[in-house]
This record gives sequence, C-alpha cells and structure tokens, in this order.
Amino acid sequence: MPLLPNALSADAQAALEEQRAHRAQTRRPTVPALEERLFTPIPCLDHGFVRAVDYMGDDGAVVQAARVSYGTGTKKVSEDRGLIRYLMRHRHTTPFEMCELKLHVKLPIFVARQWIRHRTANVNENSGRYSVLDKEFYLPRPEDLAVQSANNKQGRGEVLDADSAAEVLRLLRRDAEQSYDTYEALLDTHHLARELARMNLGVNYYTQWYWKIDLHNLLHFLSLRIDPHAQYEIRVYGEAMAELVQAWVPLVWEAFQDYRVGAVTLSRQMLDVVRRRLAGEDVTMADSGLSKREWDELTEALKP
Amino acid sequence: MPLLPNALSADAQAALEEQRAHRAQTRRPTVPALEERLFTPIPCLDHGFVRAVDYMGDDGAVVQAARVSYGTGTKKVSEDRGLIRYLMRHRHTTPFEMCELKLHVKLPIFVARQWIRHRTANVNENSGRYSVLDKEFYLPRPEDLAVQSANNKQGRGEVLDADSAAEVLRLLRRDAEQSYDTYEALLDTHHLARELARMNLGVNYYTQWYWKIDLHNLLHFLSLRIDPHAQYEIRVYGEAMAELVQAWVPLVWEAFQDYRVGAVTLSRQMLDVVRRRLAGEDVTMADSGLSKREWDELTEALKP
Amino acid sequence: MPLLPNALSADAQAALEEQRAHRAQTRRPTVPALEERLFTPIPCLDHGFVRAVDYMGDDGAVVQAARVSYGTGTKKVSEDRGLIRYLMRHRHTTPFEMCELKLHVKLPIFVARQWIRHRTANVNENSGRYSVLDKEFYLPRPEDLAVQSANNKQGRGEVLDADSAAEVLRLLRRDAEQSYDTYEALLDTHHLARELARMNLGVNYYTQWYWKIDLHNLLHFLSLRIDPHAQYEIRVYGEAMAELVQAWVPLVWEAFQDYRVGAVTLSRQMLDVVRRRLAGEDVTMADSGLSKREWDELTEALKP
Amino acid sequence: MPLLPNALSADAQAALEEQRAHRAQTRRPTVPALEERLFTPIPCLDHGFVRAVDYMGDDGAVVQAARVSYGTGTKKVSEDRGLIRYLMRHRHTTPFEMCELKLHVKLPIFVARQWIRHRTANVNENSGRYSVLDKEFYLPRPEDLAVQSANNKQGRGEVLDADSAAEVLRLLRRDAEQSYDTYEALLDTHHLARELARMNLGVNYYTQWYWKIDLHNLLHFLSLRIDPHAQYEIRVYGEAMAELVQAWVPLVWEAFQDYRVGAVTLSRQMLDVVRRRLAGEDVTMADSGLSKREWDELTEALKP
Repeated sequence: MPLLPNALSADAQAALEEQRAHRAQTRRPTVPALEERLFTPIPCLDHGFVRAVDYMGDDGAVVQAARVSYGTGTKKVSEDRGLIRYLMRHRHTTPFEMCELKLHVKLPIFVARQWIRHRTANVNENSGRYSVLDKEFYLPRPEDLAVQSANNKQGRGEVLDADSAAEVLRLLRRDAEQSYDTYEALLDTHHLARELARMNLGVNYYTQWYWKIDLHNLLHFLSLRIDPHAQYEIRVYGEAMAELVQAWVPLVWEAFQDYRVGAVTLSRQMLDVVRRRLAGEDVTMADSGLSKREWDELTEALKP
Repeated sequence: MPLLPNALSADAQAALEEQRAHRAQTRRPTVPALEERLFTPIPCLDHGFVRAVDYMGDDGAVVQAARVSYGTGTKKVSEDRGLIRYLMRHRHTTPFEMCELKLHVKLPIFVARQWIRHRTANVNENSGRYSVLDKEFYLPRPEDLAVQSANNKQGRGEVLDADSAAEVLRLLRRDAEQSYDTYEALLDTHHLARELARMNLGVNYYTQWYWKIDLHNLLHFLSLRIDPHAQYEIRVYGEAMAELVQAWVPLVWEAFQDYRVGAVTLSRQMLDVVRRRLAGEDVTMADSGLSKREWDELTEALKP
Repeated sequence: MPLLPNALSADAQAALEEQRAHRAQTRRPTVPALEERLFTPIPCLDHGFVRAVDYMGDDGAVVQAARVSYGTGTKKVSEDRGLIRYLMRHRHTTPFEMCELKLHVKLPIFVARQWIRHRTANVNENSGRYSVLDKEFYLPRPEDLAVQSANNKQGRGEVLDADSAAEVLRLLRRDAEQSYDTYEALLDTHHLARELARMNLGVNYYTQWYWKIDLHNLLHFLSLRIDPHAQYEIRVYGEAMAELVQAWVPLVWEAFQDYRVGAVTLSRQMLDVVRRRLAGEDVTMADSGLSKREWDELTEALKP
Repeated sequence: MPLLPNALSADAQAALEEQRAHRAQTRRPTVPALEERLFTPIPCLDHGFVRAVDYMGDDGAVVQAARVSYGTGTKKVSEDRGLIRYLMRHRHTTPFEMCELKLHVKLPIFVARQWIRHRTANVNENSGRYSVLDKEFYLPRPEDLAVQSANNKQGRGEVLDADSAAEVLRLLRRDAEQSYDTYEALLDTHHLARELARMNLGVNYYTQWYWKIDLHNLLHFLSLRIDPHAQYEIRVYGEAMAELVQAWVPLVWEAFQDYRVGAVTLSRQMLDVVRRRLAGEDVTMADSGLSKREWDELTEALKP
C-alpha cells in the first residue's frame, strides 16, 4: 500500500533513528548546526526528500586550503570571513572544492534527468534492473499547475483554474495508476525481466540516489537551480539543499549571497549604458545598443 | 502521424543529404572510411539511431601525442601499430584522449539514463520544457521479450512464449498510446506548461542528443556496454558505435580487442589456481579459495 | 648547439612544411581562417610557441548542438549569431563544449605548472624520464623584469633599471647554464638515470605538450589567463590562443568579448551603490558598505 | 636556517599538536584507526611528508551507496565484505567514489608534476608568486642513485658506486645551494618580483599542497604509483598513502589487493597460450603469437 505523502516506511524510520542516535568522537572539523540536521529528511514535493548523510570540512577548511597551512583556519573569524569573501569575489574556486556534502535524495525521474547534467558529482542510483520500483509518483499540488508561458519558451504562466486543475490531476493519476498496474502484471503474470517491465513507468515516478558533491560545484548547482528560471520541481530540492549549506558553512553562504546570488553581471554594452546614465545622459533603449530583452533585464536589475 | 520504424522525416532526410553532399578541403587528418559513414544514421531498436556527425584525429594522432612530436604519426604503419599496442597494453590512456567522436543519437529515455552515467563526455539533449516531444516510443521485438533471469538479479532468462509476448506488447502499446493522448490533451485542451505535461510520458519514449566523447572514454564506455551483461537495449547502440570506431581507428580497435575485450583479468587467487594447475596439480573448487561464481568464471575463461 | 630564439630545428621545420602541404577532402565543418593558421607556430617568449594542430567544429556546431537538430547550424548567420549570444549571456555552456581545439605548445615549466591546474583538458607532455631534455631555458627581456608590486602580493611593479636588469639576467643565465652542464655530466660521466638527472634543471627550462580542450573550457582558461592579473609569461600564451580562437569561431569570440571579457559582475552591495547613484544620491565610500578595494574596483568599472 | 631532514618548524609542530588534541562529537561514520593517524606526518624522502587531515566515509559507506539504503552498511561484516569484493571484481566503481581522503603533502616539484596528471582530484598548492619559497630541496640517498636502465627507457639500473654517488650529490647540492643564493639575491638585492625570481629554482625544490580525492580515484592513483615501474620518488608517497588507506577502509583494501594489485590481465593471445598449456601443449615463444616482452611478462606472471 502506498505511503502517505512524505511518510517513511517503518524500516526506513527505524534506520534513521539508529543513525541519529549514533555518536562518536572525532578529531575532524565538525559543524554542530549540520550535525543537528544529519540524516533527517527534508520533505520535497509529495513523496521526495533530501537528507544530508555525511559531510567533510567547514568554513575553516576553505581557509586552510587557501593558505596551504599546517593549522586549521586562522585564529579569528573576521579574518576567515574576509578571506572567504575575497576568494568568492575573485573566483578562486579550488579552496571551496575542499568541502564535500553527501545527500540521500528521493526525486521524480524527470527531476533526476535535469539534476544529472551536473557531471562533477558522484552518484549511486537505485536500479530498476535490480529491484522492483515502488508505486510512488509525483502529482503537483493544484496551485503548481500552470499554463505554458506566453513569453518564455521554457516557463510557466498563470495557474490553471480549479476545474482544469482537477481534470489534469485526474488524468495524471489515472495514467500513473494504470501504468503501475501494467508494471505489476508484466512482472507477476508474465515474469517479464525487471529491466524491460520498468519501461512502462512514467518520468513522474520517484527514484532515489546517493549524491556527493564538493562545495564549489554544489554552489554552482544551486546558483542555477534556485534561480527563478529553474523548473519549480527542481527548485524545491535546491532550496532544501540551500538550507543545509547555510547551516554547514555560514561564512561561505553569506559570500555566495553577496557575490553570486545577489550579484548581476553587466555586459560590455550594459556597462556602457550605466556609465552614460551616471554621466547624466538620458539613454533610451533605441540608442542603448541593447536588445529589448537585455534592456528589460538591465532595467529590472537597476530598479531601486 | 508517427513515422515507420527507423524512418526519418522529409526535413531530416533533406538535411542529411545536404550534409553528405558537402565537401571541403582540409589540412587536418582525415579518415576516408569514417567520412564515408558520416551523417548516415545506423538504425538502433525500432525508432532510434546513432550517426557520426564529426570526428577529430585518427590512429596517427594517438602516436603523435604519445611522442609529442612535430610531425604526424611515424613513417611506418608497423611502428604506429606497435606503439598503439604498447600504449593499450600498459594502460597509457592519455594519447587516446587526443581523438574525439561526435554523435547524434536517438534513444529511449531508459537507455539515456544508463548512458548518461558516463560523465566524461559532452551532451546536449533536446528538452521537453522547450519543445513538444514526438509520439515515438520503444516496443521490443517479440524475440527480445524475456523473463527475469533466475540467477542474475539484473538479467534476462528465456524468451516469452508467443501468447505472453503478444499480451505484453498489447499492454505496453496501450499505455504508451494513452499516455501520449493524455499528453496532447494536457497541452492542447488545458494548455498546461510543457515542462509539466511531459511528466506523463514513459521512460520508453525516445529522446535525442548530441554526444561527444574522447576515444579513451569511448572505449571504456564500449567495454562496459558491448559486454554480454549490458542490457540488450543499450548494447545495440554500443555495437553501432563499435562499427564506427573500427572504421575510424582500425589499429586502436585491434589493440582494444586484444587487450581489453578479449582479455581476462585473473585475481590473485585465480592466478594461484592457474599456477598450480600448470604445475600439474589437480585443483578442485573446494581447495581453490574461490567462490562458486569465481570458479565458474575462471572455468569459462580457460575453456579451450 | 642551442637554437636562436624561436627558431625550429631543421627536422621540425621539415615536419611542419609537410603538415602544411597536406590536403584532403572532408565532409566535416571546416574553417578556412583556421586552416590557414594550422601547424604554424606562434612564437611565445624566447623559445616557446603555440600552434594549432587540429580542431573540431565551428560557430555552426554550437548552434547545431543547442538545437539538437539534424542539419548544420541555421540557414542565416544572423540567427546563428543571435543564438550564440543568447547562450553565452545565459551561461548555457554545454553547446560550447561541442568544439575542440588541439594545440602543440612549448613553454617554461613554471608556466606549465600554472596551466595544468585547468583539469578539464587532455595533455601529453614529453618526459624527462624517457628522453634527454634540450638546453632551452627562458630568460625574460629586460623590459619584462620588474620589482615586486607593493600593493599586489602576487604582481609586479616598476621595471628594473638597466644595471639591475643586466645583473639579474647574468645571474639567471649563469645558473641555467651551470645546471645544464651538471645535467650533462650526470648523464654522460656518471650515467645517472634520466629520471634523476633532470631534477637539477630549473623551472625556467622549456617543456612541450599536446593539449586538447573544448571551447567552453578554453574560453574559461582564456578569461583567467588573458586577464591583466595573470602572470605575463602565461598571458603571452593566452593571447596567442585568443588569436586562434578569433579566427576559428568569430561569432563565439564576439559574444565572449561582450558578455565575459568586457563584462563586469557587480556584487549585491555594488549594485546597491549604483542604484542609489542613479537615483541621484551622492554615495561616498564610507556609506557604501564596500571595502576600499571593492570601492576602487567599482569606481574603475564605472569610469566613463 | 634549513631544518633537519623531515623536521617541522616549531610553529608547524604546535599547530599539529593542537589539531591532534582536538576532539568533538559527531554522528558521522568514524574510523578509529585513521583518527589515530590524523594530522601526523608520515615522512617521505628527505624533507617531504604525507599527512591525512580529513576523511569522509568508511567501508560501510561503500556498501550504503551500492545499496542506496536508508541505513548504514549491512548488519554483518561478512556481508559488507562480500559486497565490497563483488563491486571491486566487477569494476562497479561509483560506490567507492562515496569516500574521500584529504591530504597535506610536501613533495619535490618533479614529483608534483607527475602527481598532478591525475586530474580527478582537488588541489591547492602554495604559490611562489605569493610567498617566498623555503630553502628545501631533495637530495637522494646514495643507495637511491642509479644508472640509466639498459632495457627500460624510463627506469633505473645498478646503483652508482660510492665515488660516483658522492660526486653526483656534491654537484646536485652545489647547484641547488647556488640557485637559492641567487633566488635570495634576486629578491633582496634587486627586489625582483617573486613570480620571476622563483624561475631560478630547480625541480628538486619542495612544494606543498592540500590534495583531496575520492577512494576510487585514489586506488587508481595507487595502482599506478605503487607499481614497481613508478619512479621511486613518487612510490614513496604512494606507499605512505597505502598505509593510510589500509587503516581507513580495510575491507576495500583487501579487495583491492586481490582484484587489482595482485591480479594479472591476460591479453587474448596470452589467454590462448594458457589454454593450450593447460590442454597439455608445450607452447614455445615462437608459436605463441606473443612478442618477447609479452612472453616474458606471461612467464613472470605464471611463475610458481
């Protein structure tokens, strides 16, 4: 019987509790705020989650690597902060590679297919060749069902009206249920090989993986996936990870906010417009050298 | 209306013919046997293909890189062959990275998901967020429908009997057809965003990508994917690529056959069994130190 | 006897001429402007060079991959240009990975050590274990000898006066000559293994390698290495490569200039200063929230 | 004043002791045998070392990733061992990527140049642009000075006689001392930029870095670098790392010994020879299809 949304099986729950109860001594850098969150799933969508299962390093490890020093970090938080901000600002990326985060993630296949494009990571996924897949598929909440955007070829527009949403969900549920019924029939009645039977399931079915990535590549992933242009369904995971990163390396996270997330890159032509406006000129789109889209982006960026 | 198996649209056909008609002069190394195959799709499964769209280097480029020489290859094919075999045998892998092959591939999503695990490659996939997916899904031939293997958790056993196969195909077709009907209704009736509507399609639907990889990593891919333990549906693609590689770099291909595909790695314990047998001892499984599975593998490898 | 600066041996010269004389027909995309430069060394420093020895793809290959299309590029240059600029602006990096450039480079060891930090590339270097290294070492021109910068811990300040420069060059030459004399004595008199004897040579000795990289990673390399903060000795190589890239993929190069080289990233705080100034406020460094260094950078960026 | 061989400065020693004295609680997997070794340098060559400064995962983490399970490892060591051996034997490499080791290494530049060829790792090296390099250079022990091998183009033969060794060491020391005297004069008398002055130092000078790598890639590194064909000076580092890995993941290490280090790959032709010999045939080199070198390798591998 399928579990309630975001519920875990009794076995999984017991395994989690055992993991969380475990304590050991270590000489390694530890981060109490992340330790507190270790192993606990952060719910994502209706049946998914992200949970941190291991980590290596902390803010100090970035500093230590940047200085190639014998000790750990500097003596003062303010110096560490200054160096981390300097590194982030000048895109000295290698010290951020010295920290690692390992996650256990449950996610719809179509999200997994976007995610896996980030190649600089390690992944072990459960296999539909090897084991029977669970009957768990993603159905959006009504408020997440939106029409195709009119001006963004890969985005969403207005939310669907209630009747349309209900009908869409009915169709999605019907097909997902039927394809799983077929999957079971293929396996149980026809004894079809698992590697073949699974082909009948939709990309809204959930899969799971262990995913490990260094901090530099994780921030790059997040800069793309917590962006408003990312598909909502992967952004939810990005935001769950952002919460973990903020607890883990708060100084790095602050620098990332200031120099990446909250920053704007002005093209050569945009920069020219800004210079002219600061010099008192009243630049119009027509004489800016910018396309309509770039002009809008610049206007948006400079809005008080 | 869906195309016949392995047929191309008129537009695609015209584009291919234009590509194949194009000729230009170059100072670069060229390989006539691969030029001959360029752009032409090699059919794979019922609607898929692999086609080579560009390449860089040849057998001589491997030699040139290994020698870090001013010229191109050596003067003699026999010397090139000897060096290439030496490099392959001693796992000097970097010279093989100096050649690249670029492919255009059409493949079911579940095959794409296995394929993408090979991270050291470049890929651009068509996007279901951006465009409407075609109604093309994979249905196995009856002779490729097999039951779950009894002794291999991720393999196939006997082929299904005709009645069972017919019923399996009926179910697979029914669900694939229905999910596409729903997909169209979501798009056309409810104007649902493409990035959401696509979630209703199964992993047997076809996708396409451009995929570029260096020769070393391609051989590694092939050693895993033309192996009898690989799932049949990806092996078909591996074999199509093998045909291209053989035409492209025949000396490398020969060395790959001798030192990889046709080679066997004996563990420390297996080696000990061989030594004892060569010394005249009649070793049994019980006193071999090998597990049943390893013993069988060794027996298989040494079969005359 | 050592060669004159930037001269090639007779053998190398003959090999080059043979390479340049070679012509063959191909169906692949070709770029006449790069074909014209193929194989010819671009001199760098006193004994070094960069020369293109092979390439894959062109501007159209970027477009083709971005569209996952059957044909090659679009029909119109203006459409290709627009798409390439869009991809560059929105950091859709994977289509740029579909082009490759292969270079033969001769460079001082200390430059090679900076260069090799870029990991996403393929490299085959000649080996001092395997062959005897040539007596070729880098001596800066007097105008490139500068004192340690007072305000940049990893930069140069004023050029040395003539007497000091002459003495510096005398010392550098003396030590380089002596260490090679010793190297020869170790090899010829004591028959010391090459892998040991080479340890006596300085990091200003030249080495050579074949280096292959995709266009995306090459642009990243260039954005770091043609920057004024890069060490002069590697910048020289960056500029030689820039010349090749511009000939090879002019539309990509133009976009790279506008959206990378000529662009500026404003941090969250810098952006706030610009907004306030555009709103008429007279912001001072003290109430900007910026450090002195960031304030100077912003001032510099906005200078008319 | 230069330190005694393998001695640390008082500051470094104090930093180490502080690191080793630190203890914290963690929920993460810990490995007491590696904790015991954390931070303590293992001396390598005359002034170098390897020391583990952080790690992530243990034998159980490999199992956990392979099973994509909620809990940690299996309940039984024997099951973990069996699965790890299965993964190693069948080259399922991704679960081994789920563990990471971070090292602080001090090593001669010529060793660093071999080491850095392994690209799938993270590295932060101290910079001669940024700080003044120490006067520490590698001088081999007399027993490590050997003549060029007669039959191996990149190996060593007999050890030098005492007189020759003494003279070689005198020359190496003289040049290393002189180049450092010059380096100091360039910096102190001429105030030459550090990034230029360093070019006078030899590749036997020591450098330092932080180096982080996953377990799969570390084992690949070790399989190449603890091999008898590796240069002695890097093998010393490989063996120091092997000691750490054995303490860290003993089950993985055992499997690595059996299926990699102690294993032998037989080519298609070698396998044929073994089959024929097992069938009672008395195969000679002449009718084996093997080259002299391959024949010798096979004979060596099969020696009782």
